[in-house]
Amino acid sequence: MAKPVSIQVWNPNGKYRVISTKPMPGTRWINLLIEQDCRVEICTEKKTILSVDDIIALIGNKCDGVIGQLTEDWGDTLFAALSRAGGKAFSNMAVGYNNVDVNAANKHGVAVGNTPGVLTETTAELAASLSLAAARRIVEADEFMRAGLYDGWLPHLFVGNLLKGQTVGVIGAGRIGSAYARMMVEGFKMNLIYYDLYQSTRLEKFVTAYGDFLKSNGEQPVYWKRASSMEEVLREADVISLHPVLDKTTYHLINKNSLATMKKEAILVNCSRGPVVDEVALVEHLKQNPMFRVGLDVFEDEPFMKPGLAEMKNAVVVPHIASASKWTREGMATLAALNVLGKIKGYPIWSDPNRVEPFLNENSPPPAACPSIVNAKALGLPVSKL
Amino acid sequence: MAKPVSIQVWNPNGKYRVISTKPMPGTRWINLLIEQDCRVEICTEKKTILSVDDIIALIGNKCDGVIGQLTEDWGDTLFAALSRAGGKAFSNMAVGYNNVDVNAANKHGVAVGNTPGVLTETTAELAASLSLAAARRIVEADEFMRAGLYDGWLPHLFVGNLLKGQTVGVIGAGRIGSAYARMMVEGFKMNLIYYDLYQSTRLEKFVTAYGDFLKSNGEQPVYWKRASSMEEVLREADVISLHPVLDKTTYHLINKNSLATMKKEAILVNCSRGPVVDEVALVEHLKQNPMFRVGLDVFEDEPFMKPGLAEMKNAVVVPHIASASKWTREGMATLAALNVLGKIKGYPIWSDPNRVEPFLNENSPPPAACPSIVNAKALGLPVSKL
Repeated sequence: MAKPVSIQVWNPNGKYRVISTKPMPGTRWINLLIEQDCRVEICTEKKTILSVDDIIALIGNKCDGVIGQLTEDWGDTLFAALSRAGGKAFSNMAVGYNNVDVNAANKHGVAVGNTPGVLTETTAELAASLSLAAARRIVEADEFMRAGLYDGWLPHLFVGNLLKGQTVGVIGAGRIGSAYARMMVEGFKMNLIYYDLYQSTRLEKFVTAYGDFLKSNGEQPVYWKRASSMEEVLREADVISLHPVLDKTTYHLINKNSLATMKKEAILVNCSRGPVVDEVALVEHLKQNPMFRVGLDVFEDEPFMKPGLAEMKNAVVVPHIASASKWTREGMATLAALNVLGKIKGYPIWSDPNRVEPFLNENSPPPAACPSIVNAKALGLPVSKL
Repeated sequence: MAKPVSIQVWNPNGKYRVISTKPMPGTRWINLLIEQDCRVEICTEKKTILSVDDIIALIGNKCDGVIGQLTEDWGDTLFAALSRAGGKAFSNMAVGYNNVDVNAANKHGVAVGNTPGVLTETTAELAASLSLAAARRIVEADEFMRAGLYDGWLPHLFVGNLLKGQTVGVIGAGRIGSAYARMMVEGFKMNLIYYDLYQSTRLEKFVTAYGDFLKSNGEQPVYWKRASSMEEVLREADVISLHPVLDKTTYHLINKNSLATMKKEAILVNCSRGPVVDEVALVEHLKQNPMFRVGLDVFEDEPFMKPGLAEMKNAVVVPHIASASKWTREGMATLAALNVLGKIKGYPIWSDPNRVEPFLNENSPPPAACPSIVNAKALGLPVSKL
């Protein structure tokens, strides 16, 4: 960083120096830090992704903690620099932390925070939004309208799918997959088929109860089943949403063969991780099957798309915005700031990182705890009794 | 029509000559006509809207019935021509029939059919699709992604609204408005505020029961209220969908003043009729309030948009596709064909035009009745006892 770097400074005389590598949504996170005597420095450089050298320059000689982003490379170099500057904590503004070398952080005694507990509903709502946009061909219809091509109502113009009575397939029924399943079942009276290594008794209980609710109100109930194989979901569902974790067993889970198993007019949604889908095979499948449609929030070579995808009218593609609601993003910023602040102040660790409502209540001060530190055990940090 | 006209003919030796002015979705409607000894002629001209002269030429000297479209001008000229050719029935492939001069049809003794009973869920699902697309900024995010502008995850990129816990406002709680309300309440756990001249006891009953369902499953319930004025809905709701009928009292229901009453970050959806919204005022409001978003299926000067709308990034615009699901459009084609066929065969009129399931069951022959004839009373047609 030979060039000057743009920084916005809040509360310049604060005792603790906390850096955020990016402007983050909302102002509560800034206020919470200022109230606890922090000087807050926010890097305002236009550059999307800061390099290791950029961040070393930001850290400087004295820095108590850093809030960073999933796009940055937090390895031994950065944790050494932060530790040398007296830093005690780093937090991603993200749930994931595959950009963090946790062993390196442990070596330098730096706590690593993340921000679970606020993404479930927002991510599931994006999967629902992509499902509906694909079902009703919203993006291509909007493009047609704006281009001035509409010259009168026609029986065949952008005919899509009615969801009611169709079957939604969920692959991976964890927190997000289950929330999505309920949206589609309860909102659109779809039947559910799901596949997961573990039985999702909570989801099954809700869908059963909802079917009973419909029946007791004189309506057609909805049905669910747990599939014995992923193929069963692919074969039977009209709309399929992917919510597995990404590991060796789920890499290219959706490939040429699995695509061929799906209905010709099915809808596929991916808000999980890009490499779960073989994107080259997907582009070829979209070309061969014009009524097959996809909604994608993630990509194999993010931020890039495989050749041809950008030209497919039967695809909806959005730039990794699954967690992009005001409520969630402001919550992530708050949790990341409180992770860093809590470690600086020597607070214990919150007992359940997924139950973070007390930290988000704007009408009362947050608990004196770190909401979520992923290497708490390795560092021997105590758990809060609150 | 001095130029030759392209027609597709099915069952050339059929006794009754039935014309469809447009290709219609599916094949069941064609098969049903053929089975009852009809010769079916489908106009395949590329032209979007046929003129009166075009249709006179299609009718020719001998024609038993015509299936037409909402975009065609069915007045005295066409009904006189159809009557001269021995025609007994015309059916729009639409619920609306503001393109039809029913008095002229009465004068010439021609039955006029329409196709209610199959549009409710498909239209409500489009309103939900537009709500979600606007909430999560799907169209502008897709455009950004396709343009290659995405170069890495950013905290502020396309931040939208979390629907859960927000309030959905419904103006006009008839069949479609109520179906939409339930999708948003049950799917996304939104609270409901609605305005209608009449109390919607059925909707209230369902939302109350759903709130109880959530409570009995240990979840946060949802709440509803019937507003005493439209302003109350505009002031309080986060997402507002318009479902009134269009008449003098609802023309420009949404204007400069009502837009100013809404929240700065509200979402407005219109799948009813274009003139319900003052589109010039809307464009100005979208320019002044970048976080206010709309989803529009209909337009004041359809098929055109008012100047500036096509350039607004905070608008989603689709070309009148509310009824565009395969199930609905094939159902509309079937009902229109059965209206015409029923009159030709002298069948009585079905008693409830909104309960048309028996006509749509592909596994059994349809009832010997006309599903929906709007001038049945004027023509003194008998009602079916089925």
